[in-house]
Amino acid sequence: MLALLLAATTAAPAQAPDRALAGFRPDSLSREQDLESRMDRLFNRQNQQEWMKRMTSQPHHVGSPGSRAVAEFIAAQFKSWGYDTQIETFYPLFPTPRVRLLEMTAPERFTAKLEEPPVEGDATSGIRENNLPVYHAYSTDGDVTGELVYVNYGLPDDYKRLQEMGVDVKGKIVIARYGASWRGIKPKVAAENGAIGCIVYSDPSDDGYFQGDVYPKGGYRPPYGAQRGSVMDMPVYPGDPLTPGIGATDPKRTPDPKKAQTVTKIPVLPISYADAEPLLKALGGRVAPTAWRGALPLTYHVGPGPAKVHLKLEFDWKLAPAHNVVAKMTGSEKPDQWVLRGNHHDGWNFGAGDPISGMVAVMEEARVLGELAKTGWRPKRTLIFLAWDGEEPALLGSTEWAEQHAEELKKHAVAYINSDGTGRGFLRMAGTGTLELFATQSGRDVADPQTKVSALDRYKAQRKVNGQEEDLRLSALGSGSDYTVFLHHLGIPSLNISFGGEGAGGGVYHSNYDSYNHYVRFVDPDFQYTLATAQLGARMVLRLANADALPVRTAPVARAVSQWTKEVVDLTDTMRTATRKQNELIKSGALKLASDPRLTYVVPQPEEDVPFLNFAPLQNAAARLEKATARVDKVDPAKLTPEKAAAFEEALRVAEQKLTRPEGLPRRPWFKHVLHAPGFYTGYGVKTLPGVREAIEQRNWKEAEEQIVKVGETISSYADWLEKAAAGAS
Amino acid sequence: MLALLLAATTAAPAQAPDRALAGFRPDSLSREQDLESRMDRLFNRQNQQEWMKRMTSQPHHVGSPGSRAVAEFIAAQFKSWGYDTQIETFYPLFPTPRVRLLEMTAPERFTAKLEEPPVEGDATSGIRENNLPVYHAYSTDGDVTGELVYVNYGLPDDYKRLQEMGVDVKGKIVIARYGASWRGIKPKVAAENGAIGCIVYSDPSDDGYFQGDVYPKGGYRPPYGAQRGSVMDMPVYPGDPLTPGIGATDPKRTPDPKKAQTVTKIPVLPISYADAEPLLKALGGRVAPTAWRGALPLTYHVGPGPAKVHLKLEFDWKLAPAHNVVAKMTGSEKPDQWVLRGNHHDGWNFGAGDPISGMVAVMEEARVLGELAKTGWRPKRTLIFLAWDGEEPALLGSTEWAEQHAEELKKHAVAYINSDGTGRGFLRMAGTGTLELFATQSGRDVADPQTKVSALDRYKAQRKVNGQEEDLRLSALGSGSDYTVFLHHLGIPSLNISFGGEGAGGGVYHSNYDSYNHYVRFVDPDFQYTLATAQLGARMVLRLANADALPVRTAPVARAVSQWTKEVVDLTDTMRTATRKQNELIKSGALKLASDPRLTYVVPQPEEDVPFLNFAPLQNAAARLEKATARVDKVDPAKLTPEKAAAFEEALRVAEQKLTRPEGLPRRPWFKHVLHAPGFYTGYGVKTLPGVREAIEQRNWKEAEEQIVKVGETISSYADWLEKAAAGAS
Repeated sequence: MLALLLAATTAAPAQAPDRALAGFRPDSLSREQDLESRMDRLFNRQNQQEWMKRMTSQPHHVGSPGSRAVAEFIAAQFKSWGYDTQIETFYPLFPTPRVRLLEMTAPERFTAKLEEPPVEGDATSGIRENNLPVYHAYSTDGDVTGELVYVNYGLPDDYKRLQEMGVDVKGKIVIARYGASWRGIKPKVAAENGAIGCIVYSDPSDDGYFQGDVYPKGGYRPPYGAQRGSVMDMPVYPGDPLTPGIGATDPKRTPDPKKAQTVTKIPVLPISYADAEPLLKALGGRVAPTAWRGALPLTYHVGPGPAKVHLKLEFDWKLAPAHNVVAKMTGSEKPDQWVLRGNHHDGWNFGAGDPISGMVAVMEEARVLGELAKTGWRPKRTLIFLAWDGEEPALLGSTEWAEQHAEELKKHAVAYINSDGTGRGFLRMAGTGTLELFATQSGRDVADPQTKVSALDRYKAQRKVNGQEEDLRLSALGSGSDYTVFLHHLGIPSLNISFGGEGAGGGVYHSNYDSYNHYVRFVDPDFQYTLATAQLGARMVLRLANADALPVRTAPVARAVSQWTKEVVDLTDTMRTATRKQNELIKSGALKLASDPRLTYVVPQPEEDVPFLNFAPLQNAAARLEKATARVDKVDPAKLTPEKAAAFEEALRVAEQKLTRPEGLPRRPWFKHVLHAPGFYTGYGVKTLPGVREAIEQRNWKEAEEQIVKVGETISSYADWLEKAAAGAS
Repeated sequence: MLALLLAATTAAPAQAPDRALAGFRPDSLSREQDLESRMDRLFNRQNQQEWMKRMTSQPHHVGSPGSRAVAEFIAAQFKSWGYDTQIETFYPLFPTPRVRLLEMTAPERFTAKLEEPPVEGDATSGIRENNLPVYHAYSTDGDVTGELVYVNYGLPDDYKRLQEMGVDVKGKIVIARYGASWRGIKPKVAAENGAIGCIVYSDPSDDGYFQGDVYPKGGYRPPYGAQRGSVMDMPVYPGDPLTPGIGATDPKRTPDPKKAQTVTKIPVLPISYADAEPLLKALGGRVAPTAWRGALPLTYHVGPGPAKVHLKLEFDWKLAPAHNVVAKMTGSEKPDQWVLRGNHHDGWNFGAGDPISGMVAVMEEARVLGELAKTGWRPKRTLIFLAWDGEEPALLGSTEWAEQHAEELKKHAVAYINSDGTGRGFLRMAGTGTLELFATQSGRDVADPQTKVSALDRYKAQRKVNGQEEDLRLSALGSGSDYTVFLHHLGIPSLNISFGGEGAGGGVYHSNYDSYNHYVRFVDPDFQYTLATAQLGARMVLRLANADALPVRTAPVARAVSQWTKEVVDLTDTMRTATRKQNELIKSGALKLASDPRLTYVVPQPEEDVPFLNFAPLQNAAARLEKATARVDKVDPAKLTPEKAAAFEEALRVAEQKLTRPEGLPRRPWFKHVLHAPGFYTGYGVKTLPGVREAIEQRNWKEAEEQIVKVGETISSYADWLEKAAAGAS
């Protein structure tokens, strides 16, 4: 592999007729292209390989000596590349397990192993020092015993289905499989339904042998591999549960976990499929619906019982130091405009794919830009590279840092570009609509290392084969990584970038086996894609920093708002038709007649008819936004006086913040953006126009109409802001 | 259970406002209703239970002593009920296994058990005398060794996909899973693709533990349960392979299996999932596509190899006596019109669900009608009850009998009503469109035993819940049971009737475990549905026999022809769009770019563009048929003179025969009906307008246009015939 690594990949694809760059005047464009050519010659995959090997050599979760060592290593590197570098440490609550016990007491005894054994050929899988065992961070303490019920993915619809089967989970312990939602939704919904405990297991259909050969033969989850992870109620707010909205700077507080609103209501534990199999095998009751069945060699039953389990969990509720590395290169012309680029450095133990593959991309970006700076070049705007700690438990490092620096960020931030690992395959980008053209041009100018065509063209080919629109579309971001606080809490334009879709990275997600050895065998064997990610990220940072004018286009925001508005209207129509049909099937007796009389079937209650809502405030706002974006996108800053150009640029820089509301979303004030949020019942999965959409989904018609007005107002204000900016530029 | 059986179920549901009966004048209607009430009081489930227990006590496949005993028992019963009864024996070729060997020779040795062990609580599962082992009837002899390839369901599209993966099956042995087509298609397509041997296994996802608990805990297929069955190329012609179109009456022939066109080209053997698991586990090569994976706890690979297998099969190619029981009750008014009702009596060994559950329905029907006859009643038309032998290997008994009696049947048959087992659940009927109203009225007047509503209403409730049109629609029949020769070869209106959809009958299909014990535990515990089937069948027979005029309505035929015509037009349009799109993806390179460069991907060759075909002959015929059926359905026979009524009735009786063509379908002259046939590449699954549809599917545009003309002609002649009948009745 060393030989291979010596040949640097050139980033620019052979054929790229359209070379325009948003924000650059013609003369700057050629300078920028020269600069990028020089930059491309500096990239070196061998650095990435060496850094990954080093940073994944021991567990490096938040609060561990490994985390500190990794932060210090990264900081030293940034410093050596010429950055003004600091480690900013915060002190959020971070529980670690003291007692983990899961046993079946009936119909036979079985104790879950809850251990991931060492694997041949995996150098770190045997390291136990500072190794965080398999657990869910921010599960509450608990000692519960009860009959077991299998609840499929553990989502609200699954409990409705159980009700129809006559199965009540009150006082029971549920076992759910990973998938279909973010894991933290499962204990939340279980508790809402009255369960007293929750087990979440990795079904082999999801990321085990059903998907491919298991580690170490292949890359997928081995029998005792399990998925750690956070179960904090992050759709309410992420970060330190005790200091929402405020940086957790005080290391001397005595934390009271009882005051932590986002800790789960019931104890919850992740287990492997080897540990799950005896439990599921011991379940009786109804055979699970077809769509609920996984790939274990057994008949999936829902219970309750005769399997009875005892779950006991105790945690150390302590503050942990979260070491963020912040490296700055001050801009030469516009030092008060900040371009932010980050990835987290903490992992669930060795964390090679997640997050180090992305961290080494960020590092290589910083290194090559540092090299350029050593030749006398300076960015026009200020660059800030960020290596976050404590992302895994609850986006701790990024949230606390951005809460602490909120006012500065609102004043200075141009955009935040995030990654969170990367892999082999296709370009993947999501984020703020104003950056869609910018993202497209960046993808256009990076070569896909395997096929040598541009990463954008390969992305388009895949979409074409899937029958999708070919042009790059930035879908809205939900949550699950460090852009959350920037985008949803502060209204700072954000992107999330990576490559992926080939390779078997998902099979070891959040397990001890997400290791250097696994990564080089089954994800990105010769670091081609960590390099491509760096080429992409560096280009983005460089262009944002150097552009004469901010490279934003607002039209995609209007397009998206119109589409989402149509979606929520269609949603009520669909719900109305479905509700009528379902009520008719209930009332006519057809549902009962079509069910098997030998099996329990509780006919569901009819639902209230879905009213027609007044969507006009939202529809009018969307129409107004289309006009405003068309007008503002026509402004050519190159034709303005310097003062007007500066005012116009500042207006555009803060525009996204106009899409936030100070009171935030209903019941979750921390989330302030009106266009998107992680779903209250999906977790990572985004909900667009969340105030409106979730009210409709929850059949809260009054709140839906209120939110239509509020969201319409906010979008109108945003449109006004853009109109005013355009007017000021004429 | 005996106590339960004493209470006879009443057939007429509580609420049935519409009591009209097609074919009956008002005065006859009330007589018929009285008669049916009397009949309903005669039904007795206990008979059915006793008969089933007796007839399933030993293996009774064609050629076995058990088959002879069962035929003689049935004949004796029919005789005792007053029927003119004969056993008509034919002598078709029927191979039984002499050598069955399947072993893996690399990468490790393993010999398949190929045995179904006895099961606790199953009284017959240990009987080995005359027990036919697990095999495929009409597999060719063979002794082959080769690398193994997993081919999913073994259909043409699966081989296309393998080609794209760079996998060629030439000279290899393939392993396919049961499902998605009739089993005989799998060795046929494997041979077409150059494979030298074929193994077909029952994946647990299909009818094993994935579906429910396995026998004896539940009703589904246990690890060593395997599915016997025919693999004869029945889409070409069923019945004795040496005498297509002619009754095999000569027991003294020396059969030459080499002359049997419908025997497979390569050896083929069915195996259990316990036997399949080591083979599949030993496969290497590409991981199988997601949709190809089953429920075994392993990663499904396609190979080829390293698994290498040796398959050796030798058969006794002998003639076997097939004993059909034919029981007649001559009609009092129209003895030359025959109403036919049948079910087969042979099973793959014990055959409780398949076929005895249906056979005891037919017997109970014959018994109650015999009882009525003893009170002086006689049917107007002649009734013929039929118990077929040798259905399982190749519809032997029914095919040979109907071929032998072809001319009489064309002259006399009114309709053939078939069943082939029954089970718990929903009314299931399919068949000739002219009998749709008749079938609807019959279903209306039988109570569903579990819910007490009419079987038709429960059927409608299920369709409503599934979002389907509620009215009963007779879908067209493909093949898979004894109606085949009547409907497709002779053009005699046919129905297939049963109940099903609840219970776990499918899990032991064609295995030693399809036993009395299994049936009463997991299919129809108290013989409620064998009785409901008898109530339905008896009603149908009685009504067909007693109606003043034949209870047919031709409009549904026109509706179906119009729909199928639209389907074949849409099919070419869909294929045209898909072909263009696929060719574009090939030519633009998108397919290649979207594929994983680390995996072999052979870009498929572009296909010839799909031309626009001249569908006018078919469309005009369909339009003409709509007119003709509207006209003929308006004729009220009650208003005609006896001579005209008789002529009209005879015209209607033979009308379906006008939908046949003497030369039959392309490459399969035995199938003469132009509206439907079993699919050449689906087997049981019906193809409507098969000449046209299959030519399109095979991209044989010339033949498609020829067939459009021919089928159009035939449909027009049929329309002419109906017009003439209507004109003669005015």
